[in-house]
Amino acid sequence: MAAPIDYLRDGDAIYERSFAIIRAEADLTRFTEAEADVAVRMIHACGLVEAARDFVFGPGFIAAARAALKTGAPILCDAQMVAHGVTRARLPAGNRVLCTLSEPDVPALATRLGTTRSAAALELWRDHLAGAVVAIGNAPTALFHLLEMLDAGAPRPAAILGMPVGFVGAAESKDALAQDPRGVPYAIVRGRLGGSAITAAAVNALARAGL
Amino acid sequence: MAAPIDYLRDGDAIYERSFAIIRAEADLTRFTEAEADVAVRMIHACGLVEAARDFVFGPGFIAAARAALKTGAPILCDAQMVAHGVTRARLPAGNRVLCTLSEPDVPALATRLGTTRSAAALELWRDHLAGAVVAIGNAPTALFHLLEMLDAGAPRPAAILGMPVGFVGAAESKDALAQDPRGVPYAIVRGRLGGSAITAAAVNALARAGL
Repeated sequence: MAAPIDYLRDGDAIYERSFAIIRAEADLTRFTEAEADVAVRMIHACGLVEAARDFVFGPGFIAAARAALKTGAPILCDAQMVAHGVTRARLPAGNRVLCTLSEPDVPALATRLGTTRSAAALELWRDHLAGAVVAIGNAPTALFHLLEMLDAGAPRPAAILGMPVGFVGAAESKDALAQDPRGVPYAIVRGRLGGSAITAAAVNALARAGL
Repeated sequence: MAAPIDYLRDGDAIYERSFAIIRAEADLTRFTEAEADVAVRMIHACGLVEAARDFVFGPGFIAAARAALKTGAPILCDAQMVAHGVTRARLPAGNRVLCTLSEPDVPALATRLGTTRSAAALELWRDHLAGAVVAIGNAPTALFHLLEMLDAGAPRPAAILGMPVGFVGAAESKDALAQDPRGVPYAIVRGRLGGSAITAAAVNALARAGL
């Protein structure tokens, strides 16, 4: 039998040390204190301090997202991984976490609309959009589709986390949001980086800060 | 109303173009063809071609993981996000996807063992470990705990994906696996990078290749 392995086993101590390393290494000077708090947790989720360069928090984003979460806004997610990354126990008002991607109507809707299932699934958000916190962490087409819905007059969410990941459309969809946020406070991760873990971490940080 | 947005809406075409970009930009020369196929999908999940530098596929890993999945091995995940990233429809044998982190016994077990809940949750894997595919994509303590269980004589899984992310213990736990894999074929992402999306993408690639 091998000797016991020596490693830190205390969850709180691991978090503390992790956040200290991130704050020592990451350049967070562009951010307000509240933005930096969210940024640290986003970096923690992806393991890459350099990612902070690509974080953009639009004007009023933190306050708008916090306020919405506090008053019970639902969290609309484009992917099950995002939804399952949101820590329910941390949500300030038992907020509903909704992902419509697996709804039975979605494949037919995608065919009819000539788009991906990830984008078509957003059509089922319409009744929940007003005042919601939107968390897009996977599909660029979902973020593009959200912008099209807003252009066509859909109800305004309270805040948009636009953080899809990838090589085709990810950078472009996030630029499109930042260049014209349609009156909605937003946060993005510029370029190819993003993903469900970063997005869920941002939601969790906003929820924690709101307590 | 704004003009319609111009973007690629065809899911298959988006995948194809994404994989072509990754193959053009990433250095995959270290890998066998089968390893490169998995690596491409892992890169796709994190949006970072440079991550390939840190991918290590141990001897026999691809064959062992594929064979296990084909014959119905369960997939044991350390986090719900990993479990929910595994595409059920792609699994070759209706394989069970198991995450024990939310089991009611886990918090008390963690206290008793003096470790994190992520690590303690692995104690509930014991009846499923023999021949399983282990997918650790979140917690370094889970990977360390797995190694300790193997050192203490726990049944051998068929393959280990050791891909936790983070700043404390992540690099060390993956090095510990690679330096002494306890007779189990393994794959790791060296250093801080890793995460639930990369890990689930690797499982999905292995499942697809196995068909």
